[in-house]
Amino acid sequence: MTTVYPSIKRISGNNIASPIGYRAAGLHCGIKHKKNDLALLVSDVPANAAGVYTTNVVQAAPLLVTKEAIAKTGKMQAIIVNSGNANACTGKQGFADARTMQNMTAQQLGIEDHLVGVASTGVIGEKMPMDCIKNGIPRLEPAVGLKGSIDFSQSILTTDTVSKNTAYRVDIDGKTVTIAGTAKGSGMIHPNMATMLGFITTDAAIESKDLHAALTSVVDRTFNSITVDGDTSTNDMVVVMANGLAGNNTLSPSHPDWAVFLQTLLHVCEDLGKMIAKDGEGATKLIEVEVSGAINDTEARSIAKTVVGSPLVKTAVFGCDANWGRILAAVGYSGATLDPNAILIQIGSMTVVEAGEPVPFSEDELIEYLKQPEIKLKVDVHQGNGHGLAWGCDLTYDYVQINASYRT
Amino acid sequence: MTTVYPSIKRISGNNIASPIGYRAAGLHCGIKHKKNDLALLVSDVPANAAGVYTTNVVQAAPLLVTKEAIAKTGKMQAIIVNSGNANACTGKQGFADARTMQNMTAQQLGIEDHLVGVASTGVIGEKMPMDCIKNGIPRLEPAVGLKGSIDFSQSILTTDTVSKNTAYRVDIDGKTVTIAGTAKGSGMIHPNMATMLGFITTDAAIESKDLHAALTSVVDRTFNSITVDGDTSTNDMVVVMANGLAGNNTLSPSHPDWAVFLQTLLHVCEDLGKMIAKDGEGATKLIEVEVSGAINDTEARSIAKTVVGSPLVKTAVFGCDANWGRILAAVGYSGATLDPNAILIQIGSMTVVEAGEPVPFSEDELIEYLKQPEIKLKVDVHQGNGHGLAWGCDLTYDYVQINASYRT
Repeated sequence: MTTVYPSIKRISGNNIASPIGYRAAGLHCGIKHKKNDLALLVSDVPANAAGVYTTNVVQAAPLLVTKEAIAKTGKMQAIIVNSGNANACTGKQGFADARTMQNMTAQQLGIEDHLVGVASTGVIGEKMPMDCIKNGIPRLEPAVGLKGSIDFSQSILTTDTVSKNTAYRVDIDGKTVTIAGTAKGSGMIHPNMATMLGFITTDAAIESKDLHAALTSVVDRTFNSITVDGDTSTNDMVVVMANGLAGNNTLSPSHPDWAVFLQTLLHVCEDLGKMIAKDGEGATKLIEVEVSGAINDTEARSIAKTVVGSPLVKTAVFGCDANWGRILAAVGYSGATLDPNAILIQIGSMTVVEAGEPVPFSEDELIEYLKQPEIKLKVDVHQGNGHGLAWGCDLTYDYVQINASYRT
Repeated sequence: MTTVYPSIKRISGNNIASPIGYRAAGLHCGIKHKKNDLALLVSDVPANAAGVYTTNVVQAAPLLVTKEAIAKTGKMQAIIVNSGNANACTGKQGFADARTMQNMTAQQLGIEDHLVGVASTGVIGEKMPMDCIKNGIPRLEPAVGLKGSIDFSQSILTTDTVSKNTAYRVDIDGKTVTIAGTAKGSGMIHPNMATMLGFITTDAAIESKDLHAALTSVVDRTFNSITVDGDTSTNDMVVVMANGLAGNNTLSPSHPDWAVFLQTLLHVCEDLGKMIAKDGEGATKLIEVEVSGAINDTEARSIAKTVVGSPLVKTAVFGCDANWGRILAAVGYSGATLDPNAILIQIGSMTVVEAGEPVPFSEDELIEYLKQPEIKLKVDVHQGNGHGLAWGCDLTYDYVQINASYRT
């Protein structure tokens, strides 16, 4: 389904500061008890920037500040991020606090306020502990190399159990362009971006409006195709900065390497999306649902997201139960164009439903397959050529435990 | 919000056979290991009938047979129900099996096939064990009184822990009209009728088309406003039979007592809906969400359903965590018309959010409140006069356990 570009290479030591001209830092400022909770990402020069944000009507203050900042000139040079407190539903004071975070960071770096974005994640509705923030910002010392990036990626986490990083290199106009990303997420992850923060850096030269178009098209097929629990948060954003230091001719849809750039960005976002799904609260398994034969790609993704979001499918995968009936039922209520008698379902490589009816399969083999850490479910609805993927995780006792006592 | 009609009285010994001219039975025929799994409800005379069915595109054979039966003359005299096997995704054989169940029951009662409805609930995709059914049907001996009704209501259960029954009496034209209902449901319950069966009997005289209109209007505000896990099943139906033996003048929208009849039917359906929500798989608490101030009733119900369906809200209630931020976030992603700064939220009688911002409250008092078996959440969005209710349950370890191993 996807064109393969051999020039795209995943790089090891994949860190948010790997493109030319980026530095990162992270530390503990006291919002959380012990873990790091304040992070800063900086480009040496103002970068063209784009962002996509939660569709929740209730939007947190930092998100509004970041939107406004990018809207001003399409550029961003730094982003200050805290975890432990979402600064959401905090009214005028919350907005003032987000502005203070922006202003202090700008002062510290000697740049204009509107070049600084702000992101927050954590508990909703509690005032931001500004003493901690004010104490922390001056101590942030962004650096090139792995150390600063690791600190950054760890400082943005909440209930995540691992940090999420990826980076790719690709040749454009004979120049090496790097795209790197880091993300956090865990609970409240759903299509349309929920309690998920994603930061992407690149040294590619590209105008803000094209960067925005690229990001939007890729996010729909990656971050917006993951789900943990169907909840959509107030704070989610994915921002990308492109500082142009790679020296390529400015990318645009008419550039011969536009497709390969898009594909590289897709790899970065898909990697991060899958890492988020796999690290869903309490998850023990990554579930990938691939749908083909829908009337178009949008409906294919919609079916895939419905299946991967079904609590009954998620608990069945957790319990290694080859309960294809639940998969079929979820396909049925996805709202997509369907003929119930034309549906094919595969668990791993084993066909379990054909033409809408069960076919004999080895239950033992399937149970063994369902014990793997990455489970693939394939659905072909035989209505057209639409294709789509979605990712999620199983639903476990630990999800309940984590969320029954998040604040306490 | 609701007109109170003092003439409507809930009756004790509330059972599906309490209206004049109904008999019921239930027994164990061997689909399940030990528990009752076959049930029959019969009216002495053909009753006007109406049904509402799952919106899932994948629909089980018995549902198609029942739809077709009622469509023929608008009447039904009996319904045969089994639990333990849903007869869904079973292809042509499944359809033939549902027809055999219909035909055998009709033969047994000496009535025409099209007067018999069929309902099934249980595992999807396994052939119906027709030996059990064929052995069971001749042994069903429908009777008036409590015994047959209890057997019926217990034989239709799957993972339910209690049977669900209610009945009301009301005077219409100086005649006593009784409406009674029984239902099953537990997992896979969602707005738009999911793995839920509801059977309602009345001795009222009313034409099929008016009965259908009454049922539809009431179901939207009751059965379709409950959610356990957001999944929608292949088998759900609510059917109502009205045999006219109460002797009232035929009810219709122009009858002076139409509103009181509707209200009585609403009580029956609301009682059953709440019982289903409260008995959701693994549930320890009933959650009622009441929304006011929406731009219309439909949006109010939509907000209420979104809040009561949020896994994060459900786990917070389970954990007695007054996490109003999750309630606010769910309101925010409901898709309804909102001003984030105008939202009021109450947990029980305690206001926790006003004008979109938290207000001080006693955490200890709220924790005590959240330990109750019935939790009320109120949301006023201050946009208009729309009002709506929805019901659900908390999300617990037991939900995961039940669904991780349903088939095995």
